[in-house]
Amino acid sequence: MTDIAPLSDDIGFLLTRAGTSLTAAAKTALAPFELRVRSYSVLALACEHADGLGQRQLAEELGLDPSQIVALVDDLEARELISRRVDPADRRNKRIDATDAGRTLCVDAQRALASTQSEILAALGDRAVRELRQTLQAIAPGRE
Amino acid sequence: MTDIAPLSDDIGFLLTRAGTSLTAAAKTALAPFELRVRSYSVLALACEHADGLGQRQLAEELGLDPSQIVALVDDLEARELISRRVDPADRRNKRIDATDAGRTLCVDAQRALASTQSEILAALGDRAVRELRQTLQAIAPGRE
Repeated sequence: MTDIAPLSDDIGFLLTRAGTSLTAAAKTALAPFELRVRSYSVLALACEHADGLGQRQLAEELGLDPSQIVALVDDLEARELISRRVDPADRRNKRIDATDAGRTLCVDAQRALASTQSEILAALGDRAVRELRQTLQAIAPGRE
Repeated sequence: MTDIAPLSDDIGFLLTRAGTSLTAAAKTALAPFELRVRSYSVLALACEHADGLGQRQLAEELGLDPSQIVALVDDLEARELISRRVDPADRRNKRIDATDAGRTLCVDAQRALASTQSEILAALGDRAVRELRQTLQAIAPGRE
């Protein structure tokens, strides 16, 4: 037999599999808020940045195409969860701010997500979750 | 301000981001072998199972739809990297075996993948990679 390492030891394969599992759970947890995983991410980033953030920055942080971001932002703006204004520092860019309603919804959605994730990660223990977070942040650092 | 936890601390978000990063690297590493990430996974699983494995088992292990598996297997069979036969234990199922050419290609592809992944994971150190593997296996155990 040839020397083949099991696919179930492959970090890339395992990351995708675990990511798919948590994304499916997140989808279910976010459904009552009429949010998808991506629209939640946009809303959460808008809430995180007290002064709002640029649409291009949003696209970079989420690894999405600017055109995908526009569609997500359109939807959240129509629901009055975020507002959009011209970026004073770059008039060709738009800045996104969370509205009060957006913040309230985001806090509730985040609580539901956290509860779902805790169930999935419960068996790991707090320390392993903390180490996992640090390791994942090291593998793919954000653009902040 | 409301109490919003940063998205960059969210395990689901981080898993997806790290998975996307490693998948992109895998895609590049596999291109010279004319394999995509999914077709590589099918080939690797076929190589791993000395007695072959069923098409349905393959779909389950990869979390894909049986129709997606059929297309991937068709392609690998046309390239004579795997062969397909009726499952003696269940005549409605097909079993997949890697051919010698499939094994040879898989070993080379796996070596290229491992080298790409090592570069990405180098900064973590062996112990952190081992712990990451165990944690990910615990989050989303396989169906084996």
